[in-house]
Amino acid sequence: MREIRLNAFDMACVGHIQQGLWTHPRDHSVEYNTLEHWIRLARTLERGSFDGVFLADVLGIYDVYGGNADAAIRGAVQVPLLDPALLVPAMAAVTEHLGFGITCNLAYEPPYLFARRISTLDHLTRGRIGWNVVTGYLDSAARAMGLDRQMAHDDRYDMADEYMELVYKLWEGSWSDAAVRRDREAGIFADPAEVRRVRHEGRQYRLDAMHLAEPSPQRTPVLFQAGASDRGRRFAATHAECVFVNGGAMAQVAALVRDLRERAAPRPIQVLVGATVIVGRTEQEARDKLEDYRRHASVEGALAHASASLGIDFSRYAPDEPIQAGETEAIRSNVEAQRRAAGSVWTRRRMEESFVLGSRQPPIVGSAAQVADILMRWVAEADVDGFNLSRTVVPECLEDVVDLLVPELQRRGAFKQGYAPGTYREKLFGGDARLRPPHPAALFRARNSS
Amino acid sequence: MREIRLNAFDMACVGHIQQGLWTHPRDHSVEYNTLEHWIRLARTLERGSFDGVFLADVLGIYDVYGGNADAAIRGAVQVPLLDPALLVPAMAAVTEHLGFGITCNLAYEPPYLFARRISTLDHLTRGRIGWNVVTGYLDSAARAMGLDRQMAHDDRYDMADEYMELVYKLWEGSWSDAAVRRDREAGIFADPAEVRRVRHEGRQYRLDAMHLAEPSPQRTPVLFQAGASDRGRRFAATHAECVFVNGGAMAQVAALVRDLRERAAPRPIQVLVGATVIVGRTEQEARDKLEDYRRHASVEGALAHASASLGIDFSRYAPDEPIQAGETEAIRSNVEAQRRAAGSVWTRRRMEESFVLGSRQPPIVGSAAQVADILMRWVAEADVDGFNLSRTVVPECLEDVVDLLVPELQRRGAFKQGYAPGTYREKLFGGDARLRPPHPAALFRARNSS
Repeated sequence: MREIRLNAFDMACVGHIQQGLWTHPRDHSVEYNTLEHWIRLARTLERGSFDGVFLADVLGIYDVYGGNADAAIRGAVQVPLLDPALLVPAMAAVTEHLGFGITCNLAYEPPYLFARRISTLDHLTRGRIGWNVVTGYLDSAARAMGLDRQMAHDDRYDMADEYMELVYKLWEGSWSDAAVRRDREAGIFADPAEVRRVRHEGRQYRLDAMHLAEPSPQRTPVLFQAGASDRGRRFAATHAECVFVNGGAMAQVAALVRDLRERAAPRPIQVLVGATVIVGRTEQEARDKLEDYRRHASVEGALAHASASLGIDFSRYAPDEPIQAGETEAIRSNVEAQRRAAGSVWTRRRMEESFVLGSRQPPIVGSAAQVADILMRWVAEADVDGFNLSRTVVPECLEDVVDLLVPELQRRGAFKQGYAPGTYREKLFGGDARLRPPHPAALFRARNSS
Repeated sequence: MREIRLNAFDMACVGHIQQGLWTHPRDHSVEYNTLEHWIRLARTLERGSFDGVFLADVLGIYDVYGGNADAAIRGAVQVPLLDPALLVPAMAAVTEHLGFGITCNLAYEPPYLFARRISTLDHLTRGRIGWNVVTGYLDSAARAMGLDRQMAHDDRYDMADEYMELVYKLWEGSWSDAAVRRDREAGIFADPAEVRRVRHEGRQYRLDAMHLAEPSPQRTPVLFQAGASDRGRRFAATHAECVFVNGGAMAQVAALVRDLRERAAPRPIQVLVGATVIVGRTEQEARDKLEDYRRHASVEGALAHASASLGIDFSRYAPDEPIQAGETEAIRSNVEAQRRAAGSVWTRRRMEESFVLGSRQPPIVGSAAQVADILMRWVAEADVDGFNLSRTVVPECLEDVVDLLVPELQRRGAFKQGYAPGTYREKLFGGDARLRPPHPAALFRARNSS
């Protein structure tokens, strides 16, 4: 039986995917700026043998809806937002196996410093760090960084390819496995002959330096990616070990998964689909929870989020006015997809009706057996490896998964009974802690390194 | 009686100030890449009511000695080196009062991301973060960032002034105190009218964005600085709340402290002097420790460090050849100062003889009473507020301070019996958690903020 991967999908903010639920009296999301909140989360996830926690990030503020950020700020829609990397050390200190996938927008992170930051996390977590590679999509982020607007979509991926080459050189090529000796008797910590300067002169980046960190357990972090465009899939096929896909019609996701696997072959990739789960001791209990939760969902928050994600200002549309395709290719294809899903006409009213719980992602609701059935059907029919579970009311939504759903999946033999040994990469794929050919990172491995 | 400040001066590396001591059989510095090491340190320091731990950082590698990095790599002289910011969350999770001063080179950190990183740390530590503002001094760091060499010394400070203005705007001016309401009933997390976009068009930086983080306890972190040049002192007088000075002749330090205080007036500043302490139950025990430790000190490591710090390649000098003044002003003034200290001629042999314990900083050695006498004389005669204690053999060097020296200072009324309440700033200065006029950060405070 295929083992399902479960990840918690979270973000260092109040409203992540399902907007408005922070107003629920039992919700603790407003404690996002305390260490205790994240430590409790990490302990709960490890108790449930979750594979990892993914921490999203976005630079910039959602200011498409109404042409300003008012709705986002009012509803705490991914703002305020803290730096996800800084949550990891405290969560790692209270866990032994849980993996950490952090989102970092490479467009704005100097590679030399970013490479050290990731190596530091891989050391401190003993090899449990993953990196969700993103290139950003918000003009507001570009303005925050002193630019007029972001680079064109495909140019961003070209820059990302060069960035990856550069950080691979630092992680894999600067210090050989033979470099660090820690020899107290001889007074030799490391052998200078086994540490190389990386010299890189590329189109976008230039660097001449040794990596500051000695080799960490995984060297290159487990690489995640989420691009769904053609160029994004090409990037994922080259670099990603795990790919996130948004939910949607099962047939569409199945086609996307097939395409991603074909492109990456012979390199295996794992695909995780975004999902929101409300699980109860009984179907009725789950449905009651949904009704209770949805009284706190925010349509305005969901519109602010969707407007930024899709690049369409929904405030400009009357409820039943067909939504126009707009100018850019990204918006056209988004509108087309929504239109297909919604029927012949896509309107704001139809979209608002789809916001069951404060987002475009409708929840999977039922008893543990019912939810397990649906998840297993996704795995069987769409060939996904697992799920990236968005939060609803925290921490109870995760405690329900840990206490009800996980044991059900374990009874069916569809979920591990405990963690495999080793690093995040070893836990996910078996085999090695480090990337192997044909992954491009392995091409940059230093001599005297396995 | 004036209360002495004690800070642990550390770095996420093996060899920090005193080189070679990692080879001592009881030393644990090689565990610098584990969370357990830093968690243990934090607990020890809080047990001893240390005011804070400072984490140094340097981008680049010491490659002046011999024209390469071989000695630095062999002796683990500040390389390998991890990112200090990532140690803080794990140390904060096991402490309640200890302050954290982290070094960040502003020259290479995009201000929008850096401001969020610091705000995140101030939230997670509940207001216990400080920032040691540095502009860097190594060409190797500049090359790592894709430049041919670093900017000229005074230009770096001009850039730093603009950088400070920009991060003050983000920390102090973007979100007013009235912005965050966390009102579940009304569904209003924050009031958009109380969140402002920062628009900055300067000589070096450009930015148009709201700060991503809501106001943290201190907003601006406690500001540390260590520049000793005229331009550096001017920068410190404007911005720094605490200034580090290197050890040296007491009269020289006293003059520097007087100058710093005059320049900063009427703003109070605290001055911490770097010191290495070996304290024993008796004078003999301390002297025996020194003899034991110094058998593990590394002259080569100390030369590699000093060569980079002073900008002089000591490998090119015969033992008794007078050291030349070199070309740049910084080197000339360094050589001049050393010559005054060493007598008429300064040679490599004289310098090597001064490396008592693997650095240019000679240790203060004695019983608790003897060491306390010396520290109190520094406070009385050089008007320093406290000490930045370098490590020797860890963790025992810190345990000795906590178990022997701190109780002695407490008996004399020269050290606090426990922590004051509040943030790092309140603990150090009393008064407010936030900066007040005439500090320039207060000029950028948002309306509706106190």
